[in-house]
Parts: sequence; structure tokens; C-alpha cells
Amino acid sequence: MSTLARDLAAQVGPSRVMVRPADLASYAFDAFGAAGERHLPDAIVFPGNTDEVSAVMRVCAHHGVPVVPRGAGTGYAGGAVALGGGVVLNLCRMTRVLAREADAMRVLVEAGTITAQVHHLAAAQRLYYPPDPGSAPTSTIGGNVACNASGAHHLLYGGTADYLVGATAVLADGRIVRLGEGADGGAELLRLLCGSEGTLAVVTEVLLRLVPAPATRATLAAAYDGMQGATDAAAALVAARILPAALEVIDGAALDAVAATGADPVAPGAGALVLVELEGDATEVAAQVAAVRTALEGAGATRVIAAEDEQESHRLWATRKAISAAVAAVMIGKVNEDVCVPRDRVAELVTVARAAGERHGVPVVTFGHLGDGVVHATFLIDPRRRGDRERGDAAAAKVFGAVLDMGGSLTGEHGCGYVKLPFVERQLGEDTLRLMRRIKASLDPRGLLNPGKKIPPAPQTPAEVEPSAVEAAAH
Amino acid sequence: MSTLARDLAAQVGPSRVMVRPADLASYAFDAFGAAGERHLPDAIVFPGNTDEVSAVMRVCAHHGVPVVPRGAGTGYAGGAVALGGGVVLNLCRMTRVLAREADAMRVLVEAGTITAQVHHLAAAQRLYYPPDPGSAPTSTIGGNVACNASGAHHLLYGGTADYLVGATAVLADGRIVRLGEGADGGAELLRLLCGSEGTLAVVTEVLLRLVPAPATRATLAAAYDGMQGATDAAAALVAARILPAALEVIDGAALDAVAATGADPVAPGAGALVLVELEGDATEVAAQVAAVRTALEGAGATRVIAAEDEQESHRLWATRKAISAAVAAVMIGKVNEDVCVPRDRVAELVTVARAAGERHGVPVVTFGHLGDGVVHATFLIDPRRRGDRERGDAAAAKVFGAVLDMGGSLTGEHGCGYVKLPFVERQLGEDTLRLMRRIKASLDPRGLLNPGKKIPPAPQTPAEVEPSAVEAAAH
Repeated sequence: MSTLARDLAAQVGPSRVMVRPADLASYAFDAFGAAGERHLPDAIVFPGNTDEVSAVMRVCAHHGVPVVPRGAGTGYAGGAVALGGGVVLNLCRMTRVLAREADAMRVLVEAGTITAQVHHLAAAQRLYYPPDPGSAPTSTIGGNVACNASGAHHLLYGGTADYLVGATAVLADGRIVRLGEGADGGAELLRLLCGSEGTLAVVTEVLLRLVPAPATRATLAAAYDGMQGATDAAAALVAARILPAALEVIDGAALDAVAATGADPVAPGAGALVLVELEGDATEVAAQVAAVRTALEGAGATRVIAAEDEQESHRLWATRKAISAAVAAVMIGKVNEDVCVPRDRVAELVTVARAAGERHGVPVVTFGHLGDGVVHATFLIDPRRRGDRERGDAAAAKVFGAVLDMGGSLTGEHGCGYVKLPFVERQLGEDTLRLMRRIKASLDPRGLLNPGKKIPPAPQTPAEVEPSAVEAAAH
Repeated sequence: MSTLARDLAAQVGPSRVMVRPADLASYAFDAFGAAGERHLPDAIVFPGNTDEVSAVMRVCAHHGVPVVPRGAGTGYAGGAVALGGGVVLNLCRMTRVLAREADAMRVLVEAGTITAQVHHLAAAQRLYYPPDPGSAPTSTIGGNVACNASGAHHLLYGGTADYLVGATAVLADGRIVRLGEGADGGAELLRLLCGSEGTLAVVTEVLLRLVPAPATRATLAAAYDGMQGATDAAAALVAARILPAALEVIDGAALDAVAATGADPVAPGAGALVLVELEGDATEVAAQVAAVRTALEGAGATRVIAAEDEQESHRLWATRKAISAAVAAVMIGKVNEDVCVPRDRVAELVTVARAAGERHGVPVVTFGHLGDGVVHATFLIDPRRRGDRERGDAAAAKVFGAVLDMGGSLTGEHGCGYVKLPFVERQLGEDTLRLMRRIKASLDPRGLLNPGKKIPPAPQTPAEVEPSAVEAAAH
């Protein structure tokens, strides 16, 4: 056992440190690299509480070893893998509910708590935690904070940052800070950490605000001949000043993939399916259902289905939730892109993605959060087939270019990780990048926290090389 | 004219730079120091756009002169005054609406835009901008961003940070960065700036998301014998899982002050008045009015008034809005404290404030956002009377101590400025403070941006003094 592993074991116990090759291999990828890239860490450590995280950080700082915080590894951007080695700091054991504050409509949980568990905790008190990333049954709340995750309900309710009101975080040097409500002050530091992908600090405890649970939900599905109809539907809802809880879109290729698995695609053969979820009290929702139906039909829907009960509602949503598995059944690999464009240009982007897929010979399915303009364009590849990943990447690059030309964003909701790093510079510009690097350097001067993610390294020009490095090179 | 003033005039035009003593005197205070302290700036400059702000920052950086960004000066914490001299950067000319994006439900305005103007812009498109600080008719949106201002509707809708989706900011060295939507990435940097009180950058353009305007509003007022009744009312609403758009409280002393001006106090002689505002569609609001009335009565209300129309609703709110003027009519000075405690301890805090006022011989009125636990305990003083301000400060210190003991916050919504600086260290702890200082140093290494505000200076221990300073002292 290495000195590093021994020092880690001294802090958290030998059973909480993994260094065997088979174990390391299990943490060499996340959802992005599931069918491809491997990056072996030097060790995986499983702290049990904030103090142990602090102790681990001190050990890693002492050894000068990078630390990669990790939740459930459901990210699609490679954010939770140790690119050049280092210690994977796995928070999955930290799942305690530290306080149920129904009166204050808050809940305090450890960062390893599964997102769905937060939903259950809220529901048990007739409260509601709206952010619902697709991976909620397995993702951790700490990972959600790291990526500022959102999901289908972002349109009405916002994302994780809108519910994060306090946190405990461990800094690169092992210091523990408490930010936001309860600790007060530092609210803007708390907001800085949300979305920083573990590059600035490790969030270990999360205080979330909750809202009253809506009394009623209703779901409508509308079939269109093509994506333009879906875009028109979104515009019609905005024009009617209706902000649904969720407004999703699924293209014909994704519907076909679902149908191919034998699951119910709701509207077989449609060019696009729009899902609308409404939440509120019974009378309000009933009135909205009527108005939404009018708007959907006005946008040229070939068919509108309004779920009459919860079971029917589940059936409509099942199509949306079946896509990832259906896509995996069609093709074992995928280049899953997560971009965001102005809502009225979703159809245009889907056209670009299809053209790119045809040009490079890779099928593409698209679906996403129509209301927010978040599109998941998924190119289907077989990584065992020579050149397939390259063809998928080339098609994705065309999509990225179109997104930037539209003034959109390349990180809709999955974070940047290392996968999107090459595009960050073009997107952000040099001054904003310099700002990010300065803040990074102030919090993590040695660059030990999740290196190679989110923040592109500064180009090393002679003037920027540290004097000591220059001296060392001269000797 | 000094070299500094000449250099500034070269950038923005001589008519946009003020250096005459009479002008300087007009900017020597904000709402906090209106009846007291004066801090003369060296110059006031009125840039007309982001590029001019950048040019002003470069001039000030060249001269090594502090810069104090200022909106309407409505802050109660001294955040907009030049403590040790320097340039007041007044953004009041920057009031352009840069984009009305009704389809995207956003609006892009310059930072000097009056908050109420944002409300009007939204309403003109059947949209809604919920944050509504009491100073909305005069405060600027840039000042709101600097303080992460909120207001009566925070309970349901959140504060400025929850609507700020993009910004243009000028850094201490004059560089311009665009953050958030449109520019993408940097969303967590955007969140860092919101609430940083002009200590990290100058926000010059603000992109706000809007929400659909509620179709109906209803207001209820409930009178109680004392503050405990108001606290019970808040608990009853939470237990019924009703989250009103606003939940306000006014104590008996504040009601008396309003009555003394001849204005309608709604419930003369009551020990506390609770205001509840509901928003939504007509049927939903009607159902909620009934449920809220039940909850208010269950908490022991001696009287409940439900506004039947908009005029009656305005009458109920007029009491709340009349307090500041009424207090000023009773006594020319005030120590206006803005604290936040857990919602169920509001009555307890008011008891502490009253005892402190009696002990030190200063009357106190309290009111605030009951739903959020934000209490404005206002000690009435006459600054011309010897010892009155000291007595007010001593009483306020007792309130601050009680707030911290309750796990509350000393900056409910007005920011920290320099007024609350002495309390920040006790509230935040050394590690969080160090974190704030490191981020401050990374963005503003020379400490030129609004010095002496929000972030307490580091204690100068020999080890922390810069080598050059030590050398200079040794020679």
C-alpha cells in the first residue's frame, strides 16, 4: 500500500480506501465514458462525514495529489473521473438526513443523498423539491449542486441553485466553511459553488428550501408532423402567458426508438411529440388544461391527448423516460450532447443535427426541455466499430458550431466536465476565462481540485510562467 | 481641476464629472447616513454606457483611486458612500432598455434603470418581475443586484438572484465580461456578483427573467392582540401548506405611528397586524382566501378583513407602505435594523427589541416580512440630541446579539455596507472570511472596489504584511 493510501486509511479506516486494480477500474469512467474512455484513479476514498472529508483533503494536500469529488457518476461530461490520476473522493456513504425542518420548509441532507430521496423527504411532509434531473433515481444531491442540475421542471421552478439556501463545504486545504442560511453571509459564495463542478470546493452538506406540494397535476401530449410544430406550440403557450411546470419535446426518431423496444410511443409515426405538465390546485389546473389544449391545437397538432388520471399521466411520461434505455437498445454507444438555444430555434437546431448525422453517417435522436430550449441531440454510434466515435464527434461538432452561432450554450444542464472543455474558450471569451482562472487560483492555488474540468488551463506564455519555473528550467 | 478629474472628464465629458464641494456633499451619504454621517468623495462621475464605465475604471486604476458604484443611494447600510474618499461611480444615467424579449420572457436593461420601471416593462407585456424592495419607486436594478434585494414577495418568488440570468460587468482593471445567458458559462460567476455590493465588479447591464403575470390578487389583513398571534398565524399557514405571495407583519407601535399621521391604520389599537397577499388565477385565489381566513382566525385573530377589490387591497397595503414616512414624522432620526430570524421566533425577537428600547430609553417600531422572518426593528432617535444615536446603537447591538443567538442573520435584505461590518466576523467565522478575502483579492487585488464594505479587512499580522511594505517600513 502506498504512503498516500496508508495516510488516507489512517483518517477514514482501511475498509474505506480502495486501491486494488479491479476497484480502480470501476471508477475509471462515468456516464459519459461508460462505453469508452478510461481514466484510472490512484485510489478511491469513502469518507463518512464532513470531518472525514476535511481530513482526506488535508492528506491529499500534503501529498500534492488531485482530488476528484464524485457522487453517483451519472454525469455525461466526464466531470467525475480522475483525468490524470489522483484520489476519487466518493461521497456515496454520506446519505444522512441531518434535519427535517417542515416548519421552515427546508431539509438538510448530506451530499451523497440520492436526489429521489430528497423528493420523498419533501413529499412525506406535503412539500415539494422541484428539480428533477433525468438521473434523479440514482444521482446524488451533491452532484446536482456541482452541476447546478435541473430537469423537466426547470421551466416553472428553476434549477438546483434556486433551492440551495445553505451548504457546508470543504476547501482545498481542508478548511470547513458553512455558507448561506443558518451560517448567513457568504450567500454569494454559496451561489459561486453551485455549478462549479467540484473545482472550487467539496460540498458535503446541503440545505434545500422546499415549496408546498401542488394539489393536482395534469399532463397533455400533442403530436405534430415535425419539429416546427413543436416550436410553434412553445410559442403559442408563451403568447397565451402560460408557463407549464414542464414542456418537453421528443422527435420522431426518438419515438421510433421507443416503439422499437415494444414500449408505447403514445403517438407512433408522429414527427414530434410535445408533453405539457401543469401543476396547481384542481380548478386552476382544469382551466389551464383547456387553454393549453387550445394553444396546442392552434399550433397544428394532429392529435392532443389529455391525461384524465394519474395512470394515464404516467403512460404519457413513460415515453419520455424510456428514451435513454430505448436508444441504448438500438445502439450500444452514443454521443449525448446537451445544448441550449433560444426556444424559438429548437426546430432549426434539430434540422442541423439531422443534416450533420446524415453527412457523417450516424443516426441522431433528439429530445429535450422545449420550454427552456435545452436539446439533447444524441448521435448513435457503436464504439467497437472503427471510426464510429470520430464520426459521432464530427457530427456533434457541427451541432456545437450551430449552437454558438445561435447565441446558445454548450452546457445545457450536464455541466462542462472535460468533454466540453475545448469549446469553453470560444463560448466564454478570454476575459471571462481569466476571471474564472483567478477565482480558481484564489480557492485552489495548487490546482488540486478536479483538475482539467470546467476551466481550461491558461496558455503558458513565457511571461506567465512562474519565475521559479523559469529558474528551474534554466538550471 | 485635479489630474484625476481631468482624466475622468476626458473619458466621459466634463459635464459628467462633479468636483465642486456642494456636489460632493450631495453624495456624502445614502439612506443610512441621511440624518448623520458624511463621507465626502473626491469626485462623482456619470458614465453613459458600459464602455464609459470601463474607461472610468481604467482611469481610477491608473490613479490608484477607490471606486464606489452607486445607484439611487437608497441603501440602509452605507454601501454607496466613499468611506475614505475616492470616486463615486454613479450609474443613474444608464437607464436604457436594451432588449424587450417577450417571447423569451426576459428583459435586458442598463443597471441605472429604476426597479419600478422594470415592473412596468414586464406588466406592459403581461409579464411580472416579482422582486419589490420597499424602495422600488426610486432604487436602481443595479443596486438591487448589488444587494440581492428582495421585498414582500420574496416568500413565494425569491429575490433578485432568482431572476438575474445574465449581466455585463466591468472588472477592477476595466475589462468587460458578459456572464450568464446569452454569454453562457460563467453562470456561477454571475451568482457570485449578485449580493457582492460592488466589491468585486461593477454590474452595468442586467438580463432578468420574467414570469407570467398572475391574473388575480387578493389581500387579507388580520388584527392580533400581540406579536405572538402574528407568529402563530405564520405557523398556521405553513401547516396548511399555503405559501402566500406576501406575508407581512406590523407591530402595534408602527400602527400607532401611522395613526398619528392621520393615515388609516386599518386596525387601530391592535397589537399586531398581519397582511397576506395571494396571487394566481381567480378560482385558485378564491379558494385560498377561504383557507387563509380559516388559518388566520384559528391563530386567534380579533378581526380579519378580506379586500373585495383592488381599491380595498390598496387601502390595506397603504398601512404597510406608510410606516417609513410615519416613523420619520414621529422622530427625525432612526436606527433602522434589518435582521432575519427563524420565522417562529419573530415574536421573541420583537420582545427583545422592545426590552432593549425601554432599557436604553429609545422607542422602537417593528415590522417586516413575517414569512421570511425578516424583521425591521427601527429605533427612533433624534440625532441632534446628545447621546441619542449611542442609545439607539446600544439597543440595536442587543437585538444583533439576540439574532445571532437564534442562528439568524444580521443582513436580512439591505446588505452589509460598512454599517454591519463589525458584526460580520462574529457571524461568518474566520474560515469563511478568509475565503471571501481570497476571492476579493483575486478580482480586485489592489482593493479599489468599494473598500471598507461587506468584507472586513484582514488583521495585519507581521507575517501577512507584504514584504515591500516591511522593507519600506525598515528604511
